[in-house]
Amino acid sequence: MYLKNMWYVAGFPDEIGDHPIARTLLEQPLVFFRARGGQIAALADRCPHRFAPLSKGAIVGPEKVIQCGYHGLQFDARGRCVHNPHGPIPQVARVPRYEVCERRGLLWLWGGDPEQADTTLIPDYGDFAEAPPDATLRGYLPTQCHYQLVVDNILDLTHADYLHAGGLGNGSLTRARPVVTDLSPRSLHVSWKVSGEPTIAAFDVHLREQGKATEQWSEVTWTAAGNMHLRTGATLLGEERSQGVEAMTLHLAVPETVTSTHYWYWSVRNFAISPEANSQIQKFIEFAFVQQDKPMLEAQQRAMQGREFWSLRPILLASDAGAVRARRKLDQLVLAEQEMHRHQSNHENPTPQQPELGESP
Amino acid sequence: MYLKNMWYVAGFPDEIGDHPIARTLLEQPLVFFRARGGQIAALADRCPHRFAPLSKGAIVGPEKVIQCGYHGLQFDARGRCVHNPHGPIPQVARVPRYEVCERRGLLWLWGGDPEQADTTLIPDYGDFAEAPPDATLRGYLPTQCHYQLVVDNILDLTHADYLHAGGLGNGSLTRARPVVTDLSPRSLHVSWKVSGEPTIAAFDVHLREQGKATEQWSEVTWTAAGNMHLRTGATLLGEERSQGVEAMTLHLAVPETVTSTHYWYWSVRNFAISPEANSQIQKFIEFAFVQQDKPMLEAQQRAMQGREFWSLRPILLASDAGAVRARRKLDQLVLAEQEMHRHQSNHENPTPQQPELGESP
Amino acid sequence: MYLKNMWYVAGFPDEIGDHPIARTLLEQPLVFFRARGGQIAALADRCPHRFAPLSKGAIVGPEKVIQCGYHGLQFDARGRCVHNPHGPIPQVARVPRYEVCERRGLLWLWGGDPEQADTTLIPDYGDFAEAPPDATLRGYLPTQCHYQLVVDNILDLTHADYLHAGGLGNGSLTRARPVVTDLSPRSLHVSWKVSGEPTIAAFDVHLREQGKATEQWSEVTWTAAGNMHLRTGATLLGEERSQGVEAMTLHLAVPETVTSTHYWYWSVRNFAISPEANSQIQKFIEFAFVQQDKPMLEAQQRAMQGREFWSLRPILLASDAGAVRARRKLDQLVLAEQEMHRHQSNHENPTPQQPELGESP
Repeated sequence: MYLKNMWYVAGFPDEIGDHPIARTLLEQPLVFFRARGGQIAALADRCPHRFAPLSKGAIVGPEKVIQCGYHGLQFDARGRCVHNPHGPIPQVARVPRYEVCERRGLLWLWGGDPEQADTTLIPDYGDFAEAPPDATLRGYLPTQCHYQLVVDNILDLTHADYLHAGGLGNGSLTRARPVVTDLSPRSLHVSWKVSGEPTIAAFDVHLREQGKATEQWSEVTWTAAGNMHLRTGATLLGEERSQGVEAMTLHLAVPETVTSTHYWYWSVRNFAISPEANSQIQKFIEFAFVQQDKPMLEAQQRAMQGREFWSLRPILLASDAGAVRARRKLDQLVLAEQEMHRHQSNHENPTPQQPELGESP
Repeated sequence: MYLKNMWYVAGFPDEIGDHPIARTLLEQPLVFFRARGGQIAALADRCPHRFAPLSKGAIVGPEKVIQCGYHGLQFDARGRCVHNPHGPIPQVARVPRYEVCERRGLLWLWGGDPEQADTTLIPDYGDFAEAPPDATLRGYLPTQCHYQLVVDNILDLTHADYLHAGGLGNGSLTRARPVVTDLSPRSLHVSWKVSGEPTIAAFDVHLREQGKATEQWSEVTWTAAGNMHLRTGATLLGEERSQGVEAMTLHLAVPETVTSTHYWYWSVRNFAISPEANSQIQKFIEFAFVQQDKPMLEAQQRAMQGREFWSLRPILLASDAGAVRARRKLDQLVLAEQEMHRHQSNHENPTPQQPELGESP
Repeated sequence: MYLKNMWYVAGFPDEIGDHPIARTLLEQPLVFFRARGGQIAALADRCPHRFAPLSKGAIVGPEKVIQCGYHGLQFDARGRCVHNPHGPIPQVARVPRYEVCERRGLLWLWGGDPEQADTTLIPDYGDFAEAPPDATLRGYLPTQCHYQLVVDNILDLTHADYLHAGGLGNGSLTRARPVVTDLSPRSLHVSWKVSGEPTIAAFDVHLREQGKATEQWSEVTWTAAGNMHLRTGATLLGEERSQGVEAMTLHLAVPETVTSTHYWYWSVRNFAISPEANSQIQKFIEFAFVQQDKPMLEAQQRAMQGREFWSLRPILLASDAGAVRARRKLDQLVLAEQEMHRHQSNHENPTPQQPELGESP
């Protein structure tokens, strides 16, 4: 059960150009396209005539509407049929639409009723787009697991000590203990601090001196459902953070289906700023993910054999504090949403017909 | 639910030679082979001993019976065990048989009780085999969709204006309106006529003069369950049809499973009669199908997510008239068959044991 | 439903070295590794913390415990958590363990409660390991079918006359009739004898004279659930068996899942003892299996469409005597085990919590 009344990252806006893009979020096949004036539209990816995916069609005309590639019906950005080449426009010809918002280099989609979309709930991630291109990495890492396993992965960074031992882990995160702070019903902060030890190899090589005692920090802000802002860095012991190295990375885990996740990342840093370094670091990061995290996450998913996480009675360790707290918060948000929905169904809509996700009745 | 008491195309008879052929129709794995005298036999493709597919066996002996490749039981064209190398022939050793009929270059299979097979119900398609080989095309286009989506595809030819725009469509079919005529409870006729416009590129190039006003026609005769005879052509405005170009094509859509279709076609024409032209037109047709129709049909199937067609409440357009009428007719035929079956079960067979499809009790 | 309180072959012990090995038996993903002192351990392949497969971890320390590759928990050969780098060892952190036994070149795993494992039940196969290497073949032939289909295959060797006609079959086994002898509730013996005929090509070429009348024998001892010891040979008519050719082969069919089988074989012989002959015979055997048995077994599995064997009402032939007797015995063993389990649950454990397979409560 997904949290519906929430914003989910749907990708990077510059992916959406002259051609419609098919992308499934929260198990709903969607089509994204740029409508009149450059605004991005998101519709259910199914023509109501014969159910052809609209994403196999084209954007046509000065109004930049989407035309079904099978029999030519046209729909505008709000899902209204605006042209039927075979006769009058049927009143019922309408495609469910989704509210989307382009915000500072990210495309967000509201998972619930578009009329209730509240842009104040979009997490404020500052402006990653202002970082120098040579200090910026972006990528997409589709993973065959439930998106909450990706959230767990980032909220328990001690996994780096084992899964990424050598490059990203040296045991120090395990020795530290995470400090978890509630920020809101929809967000929390997990932080690790390590003082007096050499930092991880990936940072050490970029410090002014190697192999020296450092201050290290790793700070994640999680915002429901699967958004993580990670600030991690190191500086020589006794020096300011600003004299050291630091990376800020968005880890954005978005449910595609129950067993598959869209995983976008966007990372900026204050060191190793050159095309060569950038390319090298991208290879390093993608190796860690593709060769280490992804196989582990997918193996974890398979090992769970389709069962619900808590039903497997996981052993809880100190390092789980953040991940478990986030799961509890998300469970509460989903519960509250379902109760509100039930309440509305009973009182406002005595003979309810369950609307499809995102459909504006 | 399939219409059972009906003939389904099972392929081309010249496919059936010295070796048994496995082919699933209506979800029933079948084996086809040539028995004594060259007659084609169709049996359930499962030995009753250990369930090995008989199609993995061989045709043996002067009687040309089929021998199971696992332990050697032999069955004749009627599914009777005629040899057990391990001892006496067990009375119960019998394979369900299917009635087949070779007719003018097509192999037909009766989907129901073989004792009720009625060859007068086989559609009369004249003699495609008499056309010059250089004006003849035959092919097989397996498609991962419900066979009725293929029927819909042909009965609403306006899709050519969008999916095949340029080669097979120029918008004229959309501007015309189809005329639908009932022929029988099992068949109907859909026809489009366009007068005074240039014809589609695929025809225009073969007319005496290019880019001129023409008479165009497209006429489909559908016969249950998935047989379509399509006559389509063009002639210069004011001239006889016989002076123009015309192709006659059988589109034969046969259910393999609920989500896969055997699609055979057989096309003859009165123009471009040479080996080179034939080969070029075959490439053109297969491109249109493999690159355009097939991906759309399969995407449509996936977008329906396993749900029944009407339950998705499709928007009906003027161009759907033929396809919808055919679906209604087929629904009535299936309903009538089921009611007859229920009636027979209640009265003639008070303690019925549901026979398998095609099994002669 | 599997027979649980029984030994299953889990492979060859020399497969288990410095790295953990993942292998699923009886639908249970397991991890095998060599613990302290070289003893092989088998645990459920799922860390109780976050369900990562332990097989993706490493064997660490002088105690040779297995460390989870995700967050570093360590477990000993009995599944007890012996190290938690994140804090105190949780009492409940425990992985189900399985009893294993290394015996004369085979690794055996007890499918049930490890406390009840009884090594006297391991079949005595003598010492295949003592045969000359150039007369020894070992292999692994994974097959996508229920393991009992592999048992049926070996217990009805007449299939060689059809499936392996030419090399391994010449019709003589079909003409003989099998003699089935009960050995115990868990084992039986099936034997074919053919006298006065030339033997199969695979043996004939190795006899002192070719194409002569021979004595042939094929003797299988089946032990539940899927272990077969096959002795097969031929000698010239009137000569001692020891003057002829003979091969002894273990056919070990072990359920991986309901539709997949681990199939290990181990074969020794008294003829054709040289590296070249050995390599040639291995190719011959693997051809027969990979090109003939395996496709048939997998086709048989598919043709059964997931239905239970007896529910398909197989025709029984004289050649089935051994295979059917073995199936009946196995059914009785499973039934007895289930009744004992029910009895224990009712009396000893009035509020039972169903333990997982192999879990020691």
